[in-house]
Amino acid sequence: MKERDVRAVVLAGGRGTRFWPLGREAKPKQFLRIAGRDPMLVETVRRVRPLVPARRVMLVADAAQARLARKLLPHLPRESFLVEPLARNTAPSLMLATARVWLDNPEAVVAVLPADHLIRDEARFLRTLRAGVEAAARERVFVTFGIPPTCPATGYGYIRHDRRSGRKIAGTTFYPVQAFKEKPNVAEADEYLASGDYTWNSGMFVWRAGVFVEKLERFAPELKRAWTAIVSALRSRSAAELRSAFSHAPALSIDYALMEKVEEVLVADGVFGWSDVGAWSTLLEIWPRDREGNAFRGDTLALNAKGCLVWNPGRLTALVGVRNLIIVEAGDALLVCDATFDQQVKDIVAALKRSKKYKKYT
Amino acid sequence: MKERDVRAVVLAGGRGTRFWPLGREAKPKQFLRIAGRDPMLVETVRRVRPLVPARRVMLVADAAQARLARKLLPHLPRESFLVEPLARNTAPSLMLATARVWLDNPEAVVAVLPADHLIRDEARFLRTLRAGVEAAARERVFVTFGIPPTCPATGYGYIRHDRRSGRKIAGTTFYPVQAFKEKPNVAEADEYLASGDYTWNSGMFVWRAGVFVEKLERFAPELKRAWTAIVSALRSRSAAELRSAFSHAPALSIDYALMEKVEEVLVADGVFGWSDVGAWSTLLEIWPRDREGNAFRGDTLALNAKGCLVWNPGRLTALVGVRNLIIVEAGDALLVCDATFDQQVKDIVAALKRSKKYKKYT
Repeated sequence: MKERDVRAVVLAGGRGTRFWPLGREAKPKQFLRIAGRDPMLVETVRRVRPLVPARRVMLVADAAQARLARKLLPHLPRESFLVEPLARNTAPSLMLATARVWLDNPEAVVAVLPADHLIRDEARFLRTLRAGVEAAARERVFVTFGIPPTCPATGYGYIRHDRRSGRKIAGTTFYPVQAFKEKPNVAEADEYLASGDYTWNSGMFVWRAGVFVEKLERFAPELKRAWTAIVSALRSRSAAELRSAFSHAPALSIDYALMEKVEEVLVADGVFGWSDVGAWSTLLEIWPRDREGNAFRGDTLALNAKGCLVWNPGRLTALVGVRNLIIVEAGDALLVCDATFDQQVKDIVAALKRSKKYKKYT
Repeated sequence: MKERDVRAVVLAGGRGTRFWPLGREAKPKQFLRIAGRDPMLVETVRRVRPLVPARRVMLVADAAQARLARKLLPHLPRESFLVEPLARNTAPSLMLATARVWLDNPEAVVAVLPADHLIRDEARFLRTLRAGVEAAARERVFVTFGIPPTCPATGYGYIRHDRRSGRKIAGTTFYPVQAFKEKPNVAEADEYLASGDYTWNSGMFVWRAGVFVEKLERFAPELKRAWTAIVSALRSRSAAELRSAFSHAPALSIDYALMEKVEEVLVADGVFGWSDVGAWSTLLEIWPRDREGNAFRGDTLALNAKGCLVWNPGRLTALVGVRNLIIVEAGDALLVCDATFDQQVKDIVAALKRSKKYKKYT
C-alpha cells in the first residue's frame, strides 16, 4: 500500500490570558514550556512526527506568532508557516491551509491539531489519529475526536453521537456525529454527561482536501466565495489578494461555519490522556507532585505546604503553612492565586489592560 | 539647670532571621526599611535626637554590622561605632559602652536602646525617656521601661513591679522593680497578664555610668574582672586587649548578668506605641492597609484578597482569592507564608542553613 499523503495543520494562533504572568499577549500558552520539556507547540509537532514528516507539517498563525514559531521550530521549511493576514477565527485559517494542500494534492489528508493541548498517551493518540486518517482517506467523510467527559464541564463544546451505530475503521470505533453543541450551561452539561451520548469537542479534525471542497460547496455555499478568493490568492502568490480574501471571509469558527452543517462526520473517542491545560491549576494534575501534592518548577522549600503549584525557575521559593496556591514568578510580575479561583486570572489581565500604568504587564 | 550629659547606646548587633528573605544573616531587621521610611537603626538614632545629640550617640555591633551602620549613619563620628571584638551577648557590650562613657564622665547618663524596635508615639517616648534620665541622674538607681502587655505573650521577658509604690519623677510614675522574669510558658503568661503586676521587658535601660560601676561591684562582683579588663583596654586603646577582655567575659545578657540582681531598679510604663516588630505579620498592624486589610510595598493588584502583606517593590504583584498571606520577594528568594505561621520563617532559615545547596540564601 502506498504511504498516505498526510498533512498536519497546527493551529498555532490564539491568544490566551489564563497563564499570565508567564503567558503574555505576545506569548500565549502554546509558546510556554508548561506541559512538557518543550513549548506546547513544539510538543504538538513532535508528537505527530511518526505519522507526518516535518516537511508536511503546516502551522497557521498571525505574523508575530509565526515569527515566534519559526524560532522554536527551525527545522521546518519556511513554507510550513502560513501567516493569517488578519485574525478571522478558524474557518478562514483552515480554508487557507486546506487550499494549500488541495492545490498540491486533493487526495492528501489534512489533520487539524490545536497547538495548545496536552496528550499524555502519545502511542494511543497516534493509533487513533492514524485510524482517523484512514477513515478520511477511504470515505468521503469528516473525522473528529471527542474526549469522553470526566465532569460536566461548561468550558467545552460537545459532540453528540450515535453510540449504537459504531463501526471499526483501522481498529478504532467511529460513530456518526448527530450534532455539535456549543458550550452548555450547568444543567445541560449535567444532562450531557449523564446521557453518555456526548464527548467534548477536542478541536481536532481530519479531512481529505478534495472532500473538504465538496462538503463546503454542498453544506456551506456561503463560504465558497472566500474559498475561491483564497485559492486564487495562493495561485497568484499575492499577499494583498490573500488579505482581501480574509477581510471578506466570515470570521467564524470552523465548527460553526462548517462542521455543524456537514453530513457524514465521524467521531472516535479520544482516550489518550488529553487535556486542554485550561488554567494554572490543571498543571497540578500534570506535573509530578510531592507527597503533599505540591508541584514545583524551580528550587522550592516547603514547610507544611499542601497542593501548591510554584513556577519560579529563577529563584528560591519558600512556602510556609500554605494550601492550594498557584505561585508564578515571571520577570516583572508575580501571581499568587488560590487554585480554586484560577479562572479569575483572566480578570486580572483584563484589569491590567484597562490601566495605563499596568498595561505593560499584559 | 545645666543640660544633662546624656549618651545613647544603641544595640545595633543581633541577628534575626524572622524577616527572611528580606533580612539575611548579614543584614538583619535593624538594617531593613520595614517599619518607617528609614532602616530601623536609623529611625532609632533619629528618634532620640531631641534628647541626645549625634556626637553623644554610640552604636555597639560586630565589625560587619558596624560597617553597615556607618554607611547608614554617615553623619555620626567614627568613634560612635563601638565594635564588639566577639559576640558575647549584651552584658560585655554594655560594659564596653558604659566604660567608654565612664572614662569620659562618670556622671553622664547612659540610655540603652535596642535598634530594632518601633515606637509610634515619639513625643511620649521622649517624655518617658527624659523622665528616666532625670531619675537616673538624681538617684542611684537603674531605670527601665516596661510595656503594658496586651496579650499573654510568651516571647518576651516580664518585669514584676509594685503597683502601689509608684512615685512621680519628672512627671512620670516609676515603680520599684520586684523581679525580672524570663520568657514564661503559656500558663505563667496568662497569670502575669491577669495580675496587672507585670510589664514586658523592653530591653531599654537607663543608668548613670558611675552608678553602673557601683552596682556592678556590689551585686555582680563576678563581672568586675571583665569590667576592669575592658576599662584597661580602652585606656590603652589596644584591640588585642579588648578582644582578650571579651573572650574572658561571661557571655550573658545584661538582664541576667546584672539587672536581675540589682536592688533599686525603677520601671515606668512604656505607653508609646512600642512594637518589637517580631515577625512579618506584625507589619500588618503597622503599615497602612486597604479596606480589605491588605498592606503592600510595591505595585499590587488585589482581586478578592484579604489580610495579605506584600513586599515586592521591584515588580507587579497580583493576588487572586487569597487570605492572610505574607508574600516577600527579595532578590534571589521568594517567601509565601500563611500569616498565622510566620513564626516558622526561622525554621525555613534553619533548614536553608543545614543545606549545602541553599546555604547561600541565608
